[in-house]
Amino acid sequence: MAQTVVALDIGGTKTAAALVASDGTVTDVTTAPTPGDQGPEAIIRVASGLAADLLVTATARGHEVAGLGVGSAGVIDAATGRVLSATEVLRNWAGTEVREALSELSGIRKVVVDNDVHAHAVGESWLGAAIGASSAFFVAVGTGIGASVVIDGEVWHGRRNVAGHFGHVAVPHGGGMPCVCGGSGHLEAVAAGPAMVWSYNRRAGADLTSLVDVAHRAAAGDRLAAMSIDIGARALGSAVGGAANLLDPEVVVLGGGVLGVGARWWEPMEEALRAELLPPLADLPVLPARLGSSAALVGAARLVWKELS
Amino acid sequence: MAQTVVALDIGGTKTAAALVASDGTVTDVTTAPTPGDQGPEAIIRVASGLAADLLVTATARGHEVAGLGVGSAGVIDAATGRVLSATEVLRNWAGTEVREALSELSGIRKVVVDNDVHAHAVGESWLGAAIGASSAFFVAVGTGIGASVVIDGEVWHGRRNVAGHFGHVAVPHGGGMPCVCGGSGHLEAVAAGPAMVWSYNRRAGADLTSLVDVAHRAAAGDRLAAMSIDIGARALGSAVGGAANLLDPEVVVLGGGVLGVGARWWEPMEEALRAELLPPLADLPVLPARLGSSAALVGAARLVWKELS
Repeated sequence: MAQTVVALDIGGTKTAAALVASDGTVTDVTTAPTPGDQGPEAIIRVASGLAADLLVTATARGHEVAGLGVGSAGVIDAATGRVLSATEVLRNWAGTEVREALSELSGIRKVVVDNDVHAHAVGESWLGAAIGASSAFFVAVGTGIGASVVIDGEVWHGRRNVAGHFGHVAVPHGGGMPCVCGGSGHLEAVAAGPAMVWSYNRRAGADLTSLVDVAHRAAAGDRLAAMSIDIGARALGSAVGGAANLLDPEVVVLGGGVLGVGARWWEPMEEALRAELLPPLADLPVLPARLGSSAALVGAARLVWKELS
Repeated sequence: MAQTVVALDIGGTKTAAALVASDGTVTDVTTAPTPGDQGPEAIIRVASGLAADLLVTATARGHEVAGLGVGSAGVIDAATGRVLSATEVLRNWAGTEVREALSELSGIRKVVVDNDVHAHAVGESWLGAAIGASSAFFVAVGTGIGASVVIDGEVWHGRRNVAGHFGHVAVPHGGGMPCVCGGSGHLEAVAAGPAMVWSYNRRAGADLTSLVDVAHRAAAGDRLAAMSIDIGARALGSAVGGAANLLDPEVVVLGGGVLGVGARWWEPMEEALRAELLPPLADLPVLPARLGSSAALVGAARLVWKELS
């Protein structure tokens, strides 16, 4: 009987689910709002409901579901499938035994859970921009900044499952800016999407809420908007370049919503990144993520397929 | 027959050699000036001479020499034992086939070569400050700043053997300072020993050449000297803290000549480091290197013992 895997991507605003074949083919994508403010039981109920529906779909098609792969927001203990910490976007998510709960409620016994940025990175390493690379440094730039070091297809989780918190390094343009972590001057406080919006609002006396709007103004010739994006892009690029000197990955892959700004962000980002690189890294490939919104689903499924192989 | 290993530490000013037993016991340490300005043949001649003498010593004692472990300045391809690049301190060192040359000239067939900072880190992971840790982030602060990520006793070399170049990340206090790499604003340009000396000289209109002298003036109440050390220490600590958020190592170990300054450097360094850490890293051990000047010898020997085991 042909096998398939159910994948879940539990994010702050929505939960996505799909079937992912052993070659990475994604079908039957469905999504539902994540009831982040209703607590862990509600979040698990939505996620397990999506998974159970896909189990029915796959079974009706004569496919055996080999497991459930889950990427979730928050710091995840991948060995146990437990949430170690999370922001308030998913209320009381810390402490949730995601693997155990989904294994009980979804009807799928084998469940593998990891952080969503790590899942995204695994997806890109398996079938996306980092395909074939022995090591990749993946950086997701969106509402926050997260990263993942993937070596031979395996995520480096670190000793406390905290590895990848790349938003919290002090950067030259960060002076004094308060960071969500309680520190200050960190990359995330300068280069995440909301930081660029805030920077524009402050400079222009505006009240925008979305980076898309800032990008539109920049495209329409607003120099302060262009400058706000440029500064964030360069701060990000410079930090990634420095990390590349330390880590020497085969490739660097950038993903996340901020890439939607396009060349106005990418070009100064890459220029600042390359300006930091030591000579042996001159040929370092710096690539945009390729799998789009299904990347974390593909990666979460990959975690299951790897355990089965 | 009891086995031993010959270890070499080829630095910019001196080359050290010793016998290292399988339990890490170091004996028969000898040193010679490294003829860095005379080119690779002279450097290899001195190194192979020290190794050959120790081979005689060990043999006379009835010990079999199982191999030669080498830590060397420069970027080393550990797989082939070749120098990929090096600074002018070792003139024309790039391109030297260290493993091949020492295997021919020392009389010891089995030779393992790695970068000296990596060797130092392996030594500390084996028997020093990071003993028993599953992962360690080692940072050496001296004339330059180097680092090494050691996972389960293995050095992470990166794709191009460049991993560990931690001196070349842009830092908040680096604004505009030229770096030896050709970039600017890098950690090494602010926090390495010579950077603190330079910073003091500029502030005080002085002409000191050694950090030891700056430290003496600080101890005697010179506030500009104390400030120069404090700024370098904090820049280093802040950068290490950010890297710890990204890497989540079990322990951080700091070594190198700058630690000789003592509490005046260590305390602000550790304070700045801990100020960056995310909450799950609050208990991160931050430790001074313990093996002293023989650390790279111990680590270089470990590389041989590991291959034999």
